[in-house]
Amino acid sequence: MSESIISNAPQGMPAPEIDPEFHRLLAHADDNLVLSHRLGEWISKAPELEIDIALGNFALDHLGVARLILQRAGVVEGRGRDEDALAMGRTDRDFFNLLLVEQPNGDFAHTIVRQFFFDCYQLQLWPDLAGGKDQILAGIAAKAYKEAEYHHRFSMGWMLRMGGGTDESHLRAQDAVDALWRFTDEIFEGEAAGCRAGWDAMISETFEAAGLTIPEDPYQRGGGRAGYHTEHLGYLLGELQWMQRTYPGLEW
Amino acid sequence: MSESIISNAPQGMPAPEIDPEFHRLLAHADDNLVLSHRLGEWISKAPELEIDIALGNFALDHLGVARLILQRAGVVEGRGRDEDALAMGRTDRDFFNLLLVEQPNGDFAHTIVRQFFFDCYQLQLWPDLAGGKDQILAGIAAKAYKEAEYHHRFSMGWMLRMGGGTDESHLRAQDAVDALWRFTDEIFEGEAAGCRAGWDAMISETFEAAGLTIPEDPYQRGGGRAGYHTEHLGYLLGELQWMQRTYPGLEW
Repeated sequence: MSESIISNAPQGMPAPEIDPEFHRLLAHADDNLVLSHRLGEWISKAPELEIDIALGNFALDHLGVARLILQRAGVVEGRGRDEDALAMGRTDRDFFNLLLVEQPNGDFAHTIVRQFFFDCYQLQLWPDLAGGKDQILAGIAAKAYKEAEYHHRFSMGWMLRMGGGTDESHLRAQDAVDALWRFTDEIFEGEAAGCRAGWDAMISETFEAAGLTIPEDPYQRGGGRAGYHTEHLGYLLGELQWMQRTYPGLEW
Repeated sequence: MSESIISNAPQGMPAPEIDPEFHRLLAHADDNLVLSHRLGEWISKAPELEIDIALGNFALDHLGVARLILQRAGVVEGRGRDEDALAMGRTDRDFFNLLLVEQPNGDFAHTIVRQFFFDCYQLQLWPDLAGGKDQILAGIAAKAYKEAEYHHRFSMGWMLRMGGGTDESHLRAQDAVDALWRFTDEIFEGEAAGCRAGWDAMISETFEAAGLTIPEDPYQRGGGRAGYHTEHLGYLLGELQWMQRTYPGLEW
């Protein structure tokens, strides 16, 4: 994967003017930062205590990955911005995460399907980045891969339980798949195109075992990698960044 | 009503140290500012276009009242803060609105019941303030009273339609009453105690006509007038204040 992440700006909208390596690091960091925040929203609200703790731990894993990559991004940018400045000081147009991870939690099925799609992607991505030229990013990727394996065991397990469970659980899982499928093509733009085959295979295997189907609706939505987001990200950042926006430079 | 609004701080929590007149103005302004924001959340999402426009107009009415009172509050405070600084620069602990108005919109019934409770209160409050010593506040109150009459016609009309409509609409209206009743005692603390009798009479008359009942659960929640809020206000302010927090001093 030597190609940079191609900016998937919607037709007629400008692509961001940004150093490709910096942009690429932000994209991966923002995926993890935003998903971490979404998972954190489940804390105290999950259907079981065990799941509550699991989702909270996944949130911390993703946050840890985001922090490490943002630190690296700050160095690559070379303008003295640290992880906090990058996480708390950018507006939505300067976030380059996938639209998938910013989608609302919905019910438990939506959260699991979103996580499953993302985990399968991360399991393809990290081995590629672990063998890349950037030694620091390679080290982060090697660590993140192990966490992604654990996340995937959890999300795949729930895909099987929901898909093959009751009529209600099956319906909810399929509804979530139908709602989120439109955010999957975007994952594989640019350098991540090489991840598609492996991802497709993982999805097919689990969908077959779970009795779930890929929706026939061909509509796909993109723009996240170019900073064009769904309505949801702005509200998420409003919450995420509230403290630093209200008390700039706050430390504790 | 010469008594100031008594700070209803929860047991063991300090009351805010603030000039009583400034506090009183903020309390009334914040009621209208926060409710305005909630009503604005309905825009493009109301069940009918006519209702969408009505709720949007109510939001603008409440915002107009909030602006005028915040301007007056800035003068009374005498520290050079204008309406924007007071609306966008305070944190939740310095907001003194009723907990009622910060409650989430819920379904349409929740929004209507919240509005109906508040409108009945405003119809009692404004005539009192219109006859008060503060001539500027008196002028604002006279204007606000006319708007409250219109709001009340709308919310009362929907109370009757929902309460006396289908089983589903009745159930939803009663659910909303049951959920929001606990935030009604707080309205009548301090100087607003004199509004209680008139409010009770209005509620009773409409409830009887609509076949709705006051819940038997005696639990009541307070704290808003002292700056102790439910979880919801922080998120609301995160959204309301995002722009000014992100671009401090922004003008257009």
